Amino acid sequence: MLLNAARLSDIITAMNESPAHTITFQPGDIVCEGVPHGANLLRVALLEGVHINASCGGTGGCGKCRVLIDSGEYEGGSGAKLPYEDFDSGVRLACRVKVLGDLVVTVPEESRMGDAVALTHERRPGPGRVLTASDLEHLVKGWSVDPVVKKYALSLEAPDAANNINDLDRLKLGLKAEHGIEDVSVDFEVIRELPSAMRGQDWNVTATVVERSRGPKVIQVVPGDRISDDYSIVLDIGTTSVYVQLLDLGSGETMAQASDYNGQISYGDDVITRIVHARKGEGRKQLQEAVVSTINGVVGKVLEKTGVDSCQVSHMVAAGNTTMTHLLTGVDSANIRIEPYVPAATFLPPVRAGKLGIDVCDHVHLYTFPCVSSYVGGDIVSGIVGSGVFQTDKVTLYVDIGTNGEAVVGNREWLVATSCSAGPAFEGGGIKHGMRATRGAIEAVQVEPVTGEPHILTIGGRKPLGVCGSGIIDAVAELLEAGILEQNGKFNREAGSDWLRQNEDGQWEYVLVREEYTASERGDIVITEPDIDNLMRAKGAIFAGITTLLNSVGLELDAVEQVYIAGGFGKYLQIDRAAAIGLFPEMEPEMFTFVGNGSLLGARLVSFSKDMLAAAERVALTMTNIELSDNQFFMDEYMAALFFPHTDMKWFPRMAGILGKLK
Amino acid sequence: MLLNAARLSDIITAMNESPAHTITFQPGDIVCEGVPHGANLLRVALLEGVHINASCGGTGGCGKCRVLIDSGEYEGGSGAKLPYEDFDSGVRLACRVKVLGDLVVTVPEESRMGDAVALTHERRPGPGRVLTASDLEHLVKGWSVDPVVKKYALSLEAPDAANNINDLDRLKLGLKAEHGIEDVSVDFEVIRELPSAMRGQDWNVTATVVERSRGPKVIQVVPGDRISDDYSIVLDIGTTSVYVQLLDLGSGETMAQASDYNGQISYGDDVITRIVHARKGEGRKQLQEAVVSTINGVVGKVLEKTGVDSCQVSHMVAAGNTTMTHLLTGVDSANIRIEPYVPAATFLPPVRAGKLGIDVCDHVHLYTFPCVSSYVGGDIVSGIVGSGVFQTDKVTLYVDIGTNGEAVVGNREWLVATSCSAGPAFEGGGIKHGMRATRGAIEAVQVEPVTGEPHILTIGGRKPLGVCGSGIIDAVAELLEAGILEQNGKFNREAGSDWLRQNEDGQWEYVLVREEYTASERGDIVITEPDIDNLMRAKGAIFAGITTLLNSVGLELDAVEQVYIAGGFGKYLQIDRAAAIGLFPEMEPEMFTFVGNGSLLGARLVSFSKDMLAAAERVALTMTNIELSDNQFFMDEYMAALFFPHTDMKWFPRMAGILGKLK
Repeated sequence: MLLNAARLSDIITAMNESPAHTITFQPGDIVCEGVPHGANLLRVALLEGVHINASCGGTGGCGKCRVLIDSGEYEGGSGAKLPYEDFDSGVRLACRVKVLGDLVVTVPEESRMGDAVALTHERRPGPGRVLTASDLEHLVKGWSVDPVVKKYALSLEAPDAANNINDLDRLKLGLKAEHGIEDVSVDFEVIRELPSAMRGQDWNVTATVVERSRGPKVIQVVPGDRISDDYSIVLDIGTTSVYVQLLDLGSGETMAQASDYNGQISYGDDVITRIVHARKGEGRKQLQEAVVSTINGVVGKVLEKTGVDSCQVSHMVAAGNTTMTHLLTGVDSANIRIEPYVPAATFLPPVRAGKLGIDVCDHVHLYTFPCVSSYVGGDIVSGIVGSGVFQTDKVTLYVDIGTNGEAVVGNREWLVATSCSAGPAFEGGGIKHGMRATRGAIEAVQVEPVTGEPHILTIGGRKPLGVCGSGIIDAVAELLEAGILEQNGKFNREAGSDWLRQNEDGQWEYVLVREEYTASERGDIVITEPDIDNLMRAKGAIFAGITTLLNSVGLELDAVEQVYIAGGFGKYLQIDRAAAIGLFPEMEPEMFTFVGNGSLLGARLVSFSKDMLAAAERVALTMTNIELSDNQFFMDEYMAALFFPHTDMKWFPRMAGILGKLK
Repeated sequence: MLLNAARLSDIITAMNESPAHTITFQPGDIVCEGVPHGANLLRVALLEGVHINASCGGTGGCGKCRVLIDSGEYEGGSGAKLPYEDFDSGVRLACRVKVLGDLVVTVPEESRMGDAVALTHERRPGPGRVLTASDLEHLVKGWSVDPVVKKYALSLEAPDAANNINDLDRLKLGLKAEHGIEDVSVDFEVIRELPSAMRGQDWNVTATVVERSRGPKVIQVVPGDRISDDYSIVLDIGTTSVYVQLLDLGSGETMAQASDYNGQISYGDDVITRIVHARKGEGRKQLQEAVVSTINGVVGKVLEKTGVDSCQVSHMVAAGNTTMTHLLTGVDSANIRIEPYVPAATFLPPVRAGKLGIDVCDHVHLYTFPCVSSYVGGDIVSGIVGSGVFQTDKVTLYVDIGTNGEAVVGNREWLVATSCSAGPAFEGGGIKHGMRATRGAIEAVQVEPVTGEPHILTIGGRKPLGVCGSGIIDAVAELLEAGILEQNGKFNREAGSDWLRQNEDGQWEYVLVREEYTASERGDIVITEPDIDNLMRAKGAIFAGITTLLNSVGLELDAVEQVYIAGGFGKYLQIDRAAAIGLFPEMEPEMFTFVGNGSLLGARLVSFSKDMLAAAERVALTMTNIELSDNQFFMDEYMAALFFPHTDMKWFPRMAGILGKLK
């Protein structure tokens, strides 16, 4: 999931500065456009499907990724494994090269995957549309910065004997006369300190007013004209991670962002174990304190970075799944996991953030995104708003692959949603060497078709520690295409690759990295058959969830006109690989859009715009939840999906061709 | 002020049981009707103007109050000062006699005030109308028990797979379907525990709903049918004392009551010293904690007495003056004492009582009475509602004599109000031997016209400790009528009474009780000229306040059709004595009604009836505050009132006659 914060960072950085470059790989004239400034050359090649040998994950450790840079601006490229004379003759290690301009790069034969194959064995489809800053702005239409919480400057008359009405009424009359705001209620805490606030700068004050369904409410009054001190904090409360952004409500700018693991992890990895813990003694309190402590940490960071005081913050918006929303607000979550899966509430009133223990000024209220059901939460509602699905005419499939997998199908007129109970395989859970997508995780894998040798890339170019979701998908897809893995998820015992073996327990496994190249001394990093089985069940649940959703509205997969992918994968999920294992059907890459952290996108919008807040509530009310737990159609679909890519190859013609050739 | 709680107790006791008796005094056939069962005979005589000698305050200590009881039922009457043979021949000490039936009592010559006078030297007018329980009910018309907070029993359907909406929406749908309550909001604390509350008794719950200006709000949900557990706590927060009653909102009954001194007294006797203290460091917090501690004490008492749990309490209503309301709720009161006397707020939103530190269940909200201005507070608004002044067609004068003195003139169509800054003389403040109206306080005084000998009654028949407001008024009135005190407030140096003397400092003083009969050994209890001066200024301020109020609407005193007296005096204030010193003009006693603790009366009504709550808010909005501090008419009136009873005898024909005879 942290990958995702990195992506948002990319996007926002891109917004301000970085130009994109073009890299041409030789031989073959393979052109990669839109390469970010400062990108790692090996990473670009691997993500674009240009095979360059790399056994160590891009750490400079194996010295296999030798290239010649024919022209263009770059930095680095030397390393211990590159002899001085080779460097002198123009050879560089691709994993050490930072792209600073348009490049022409030759990949010599020794760096390619065996002599027999071309530079790329087959040009793979592009990775789908990755959002840029301007995309972000155009995803959702018809909104402007007009937050539900606003600041108003007032110049009041000082009282005298002829006009000595109380301070509160003077404030109310001022709001009416100067800003046309009527029938306002005023928070008790504001009234308490009103006399000194109003007299602090000679009856000039700034009032913060929130528009609520029952009318406007003044939540803060400070002396002087402080209308430019107007910030909001938006949060994505994930089961695994918490993301925060500090927004300037005046300019619409993002001031800073931060993220951290959700401190609740120490009480369990998934929502079910946390709900169970919440029922024990002080459990509910502990879980609330844990996530609040995480929030305080990341909020503290963005405030410190920017020098913004928490009293300048006007409000907070948090999007999370239904369980996270309950646990954050201290609401009893017990029945979320008990049939018939009833949450305490799907719409929670705004709550004073300080009351939850969040370290912000007392007036700040936390708005939590409305949820739909126990397993279709505010994060999904937020994603549907943030990605503009609620406005589109096209039949859209929205899939969020996090600790759970949620899918939504619909458009501006209707929306059906479900949670697929996919399990955490895509986040590295239930995988022997699985890990979250953090530094040192193998995030991309290529398998040499002839020898079965793996070439890998790790996040951050660190020595490999384990494998994350996209790495596992890549590996399984490549192993399938290389004939090393069978469609039933079992290794081909006759594949005869040096990287395929039986371990001490007789279990078959595929070696991704030899121990010498890993960051630990805990043996080789491998993928086992049970790992693959877990992945199959995860992808099967999502695929079956999607087809069940479509079926609930009388549609099939071909009715889908566009696909939005949210969640931890971001742009590192290769659409063709996902289709190769059967996570999605084969579709045109142009149909896919990666929205990254959809939940945070929606939270931003809602914080900026009261119209979008109203839209979020409409979305939550109109979205229909399809329960899968007792659904026979889903069960049938799920059983049929327990095969790579699927027992029914109707939606996988390309893969049918590749696999057909292997037989 | 505690007198008042005693009166309320009388009223409520009277409601349930006690029959009234008739006592006939001989000689002279003086008939006293409506004497409460168990009353003290000497007290009855003194309050009815029947002179019986008594020097010790009714403690049996002087043996002077000898009477013969010719017929009827009674108890007691013996004492150490009554020889056995006298008792045997039918003589009783009136101060020791408890009235248990209709009596005929002969007052022998030795117990009368000198040989020269009749049993009563002049039949004094009655004490005005004292409210009985049925009066209380008829004071205010057109209301029934229909509180702003109500309980509703719900039988909800259990969720199943086909209907698994969240608990909150299930509750809302139930309220709509079973009770027609729509668009309800639900308190966050309720939502938090909703799942267990709804499942606690098989989906049968009781919801407590408060009607607020912005719509209904659910503040409590408990399992089962608990609609009969519906109580409210009403409070009168006085500067000096705090009164509480526990009401049953179902039956409209008063369950219990209690009172105590306001713990803020240790930070100052009056509102000004408390406001000053509130500005210092932790002062505001200390004052809030002090009164909350008092509230917790008295609330604890009524809950303990009745066995009611605080979670069965649906709401709290408190009436207090503007400063008390600010201090209780922790609102900055600083500007109340600074020209132009601006309170922070006159209407405060209901606040969670627990948030103020009040020991009640978390859902209980405290409604504080709206105020009019810095010195016309919620206690006055409450009194106007509780006494029905806001409904009457008659031009009514409402006077509340507490630590301050507030006056209101008006009827159902208009109301003008003011605070007279009378000072605490009527509560014993600024009086050498002054004390509050508690046990041992001299509350009634008669002066033998020839010898000038005082006869006194103390509260509770205890040995005298000092003198309270009604005692001082009595004493001054009697001394004026006996020619011992001059109209300018100076003693008549030639009166030649044994009880009039110069003290060591040359100051003139009148002895009320010789040290031998007092409870302490701190010398005689006296009234000094400075005491009388303080009393004159206090009564002058109230009288001038009343005439200024009337003048503000173009009226004079004769326009007043009825007078309501609220505050500590209760029925112990003798109308003719009050007129004798010039606190009120001479009026027919039938025009006067004593409402006792008007503030608590109104708080009760508002707690019982949402219509009365709305009425209270209308009263507060429509009442016009007349500021006296800068008012020349008031200053002139005040100067004219610094005389007993007044420099202009126009409104005091009876007193003019008595004083004329003396000259």
